[in-house]
Parts: sequence; C-alpha cells; structure tokens
Amino acid sequence: MLSVIPVRGIPDIKKGDDLGKLLVTRLKEQGDEFQQGDIAIVSQKIVSKSEGRVVSLSKIAPSDFAKTIANSSGKDPRQIEVILRETRKIIRMRGGHLITETKHGFICANAGVDQSNVGNGDSVTLLPQDSDGSADRIRKTIHEITGRIVPVIITDTFGRAWRMGQVNFAVGISGMKPIHDYRGTRDMYRRRLQVTEIAVADELASAAELVMNKADRVPAAIIRGYNAPKGHGRVKDLLRPEEFDLFR
Amino acid sequence: MLSVIPVRGIPDIKKGDDLGKLLVTRLKEQGDEFQQGDIAIVSQKIVSKSEGRVVSLSKIAPSDFAKTIANSSGKDPRQIEVILRETRKIIRMRGGHLITETKHGFICANAGVDQSNVGNGDSVTLLPQDSDGSADRIRKTIHEITGRIVPVIITDTFGRAWRMGQVNFAVGISGMKPIHDYRGTRDMYRRRLQVTEIAVADELASAAELVMNKADRVPAAIIRGYNAPKGHGRVKDLLRPEEFDLFR
Repeated sequence: MLSVIPVRGIPDIKKGDDLGKLLVTRLKEQGDEFQQGDIAIVSQKIVSKSEGRVVSLSKIAPSDFAKTIANSSGKDPRQIEVILRETRKIIRMRGGHLITETKHGFICANAGVDQSNVGNGDSVTLLPQDSDGSADRIRKTIHEITGRIVPVIITDTFGRAWRMGQVNFAVGISGMKPIHDYRGTRDMYRRRLQVTEIAVADELASAAELVMNKADRVPAAIIRGYNAPKGHGRVKDLLRPEEFDLFR
Repeated sequence: MLSVIPVRGIPDIKKGDDLGKLLVTRLKEQGDEFQQGDIAIVSQKIVSKSEGRVVSLSKIAPSDFAKTIANSSGKDPRQIEVILRETRKIIRMRGGHLITETKHGFICANAGVDQSNVGNGDSVTLLPQDSDGSADRIRKTIHEITGRIVPVIITDTFGRAWRMGQVNFAVGISGMKPIHDYRGTRDMYRRRLQVTEIAVADELASAAELVMNKADRVPAAIIRGYNAPKGHGRVKDLLRPEEFDLFR
C-alpha cells in the first residue's frame, strides 16, 4: 500500500526560508516523521518564493514584441515580457495562449510564470532557475536533520496536448531516477513488455496533487510506501529531446 | 491522507468474467472491503479481455496501406491493419511511430492496440469499445454486491508529447466527474486562481499505476480517502476538442 500524506500548516514562504527544515518541523507537528524511503513532493510555488524567484511587474519595461503579443492576447504586456525572458522558444501562439519552451526545456503555458498565491498583487513567480539543485538542497537538509534518505520532487501543474485540464508534473528531482525502466522484463506470459518506460516521477507528482490544494495552503506532500527507482536522476531525463519529439 | 491499495491475485481474465464481482472477492481475500467513496482503478487490459476485445492476428488480412506502413516501420502488417481499424485519424507517422486518434477520440500510440499480457502470442487487445459503459458495469456490480457507491476509472498507459516515458491515463469513467473545477475559487490571497481545472481522473490513474505492475498481475487498485468530484462525468470530458487543441 502506498500513502499520500499532505503536509499541512506551511506558512507564507519568504525569500531565504529553509523548506527542508520546515517540512521536517511541520511533519512532526502533525504527529508524523520522515521514514526511510519516503518521497517529499514540494510545489514549485513555495520553492520559487524561498529562492526569491518573484518579480514585481511594476519594475518591468515591456519590449515592443511583448506589447504586440499583449495586444493580441489581452494580457498585461509586463507579464508577457517576463514570460519572454524565461522562454527559449515559442512553441504555439494562438487564441490568447502562449505555449513556450522554458530555458530548462519544459513545454508549458506562459513559461511557468504564475500569478496565483503570490502575496503582492503586482508580483509573479518564475520557475526555480535550477530546480534539480533546489530539490538537492531540500533532500540534503532533510537528511542532515533526520538521517533519512528522502528523494525530493518539485512539481508544477501544466496543461497537456490533446486532453482537458492540468495535472501535476515533476519539474525538479533529487535522490531517485524519474523513470522506471521495464526494458528486459517480461510480462506474465514471459513475453517482453512493450511498455518499457514509466515516468514515475510525473505519476508521483500527480498522486501528490490529489492532497495538495492551492487554496488551502498544502504546498507539499509525502509519499510513503513507494520504492523509487534508485539512482541520481535529473529532470532532464523526463524531457524528450526535440529531435525525437513529434509534437513541436 | 490518501491510500492507494493494490488488488492482488487477480487471475488470468477470460471473456465473460465479471470484473466487479472479482474486485469485491479479491479485496475481501486480502482482508479488506470496499468503503463508501473508494475509487476503483482498473487496467484496460483486463477490461478488454473480459469483453472479448482480443483479436487473433492470424485471422487478419492486411490492406495495401497497412502493408506499406508495415514496410516502412518494420512492424507486423496484420497488427498495423488492426491499428488502422481502431483509428479515426492518423496524427503522426514518423520514425516507425504511429500516433493515432482512436474512434473514442484518444490520441495515443498504435490506437491503444497492445500485445503485452495477452495469453496467445498471436493475439492483441483493443481498447474497450465503450469504456465509460465498461466502467458503469463494474460500478453497478460493486454497488449491487456491497451497497457501496464506488466510482470506477479504467486506465491505460500512454506516451505524452514533449516528455519521456509513459504514464497512466483515464480511458473510462463512471460515478464521478473527471475534472476538479477551481473556477470561481480564490487563492490564499483571495485572488482568483489562474489554474482552474485539474484533471483529477488522470491524476488518480497515475497514482494507481504506482502500485499496479504489469509483470506482477496487479491490474487494479483502490484509492481511499479522496473526495472525487461528484457528478456523472464521461471520459469525453477529458478530451480536448480538436478546434481548441494546438497540437494536432
């Protein structure tokens, strides 16, 4: 059996806050503690805030291109400017939607720039600059305090091609491999499995979202009872190289 | 807290087997029973087998077009023929990959036609013809036997645009809405949430996959402790209409 445990009562996060320490404390306050093999799932939003990845729109001077896009999409030109600064490549621009490839290689709406749950009405958050590095820091802090080896996944909600609604995806990983590789294993009839690689880090992110609730201050969860693929994976392992991608 | 409970010991499924009854029995044999609000997650593979959606390739005469595709992709022309018969539209054909839109509207590799875990080496499974109907039947049986209202999600593993690896998706739904709609709710700063719709049925499917294991005969799981969006949703609610889709 696998359990998904919400970490409640995490306060409003400010730049410099130590998320690893906070997770240990909050978990203890709800009568629990980290166990060996637990996986900590942390929302991008609090990671970005703790790292000061918050931009005040009042300080942004939009470029001409940002103004052009803003005009056609009805959005704030300063927000478009911030999105463009986070963007490596524009994948689709249509009907007011801006799907871009971020500098990390994520393909998502608005380069992951987000306005919800940021204190100042004028501010937006950016994705962490190096979200694997962010996950590393949280994992190391948890290990230092508790002695437990706890892989960490940082998540954000993205839309998908072809399907309605958003789901939670892994945007940063530390202490595990993000993909369970079934290649070489056989099915129950001893035939080689056709489905060979399962993106378990994305599935763990989705599982955690079910107990995380944007409106209710639950920006983190613990997954207990899952045997994560061992190794030193990076989120890049989840990103399909452009030359093998049929959809950009 | 949310729990994901594997349903173990499900035998090899044959046409006509009653999956709802089987889930109730197996759950009881592992010392558990359905509780109000549990969600049953069932792999497409056993649903298809129970519904006789299995095709013997030896009985398939491939068309000229199927032979042409088989030639360029190195696949069995009879399997290509079966894929084409399940296909409404070919979305991408490149590098030996065939991404199609099935007659249900799913966009996935090979129209969901799959060779793994089918007894006869010559056979493939097709997706259920009406997977919401399949889910309805399982839900009703569970309700008849146990008196519990248990939403049902039928799942299959699909690849994704842009990202490596496959994850589990909902392909059939009964007894719940597949999307949690946050529109109108406000974030912790009382601002309207930007992320408005979460595809929770897909997240539940992903969560269940973490305890389902193709090689280990765990084709079903129970999710306990999740408050599913109430209503009579259909899997079509998860499919983005072509006119609003930027990626086909």
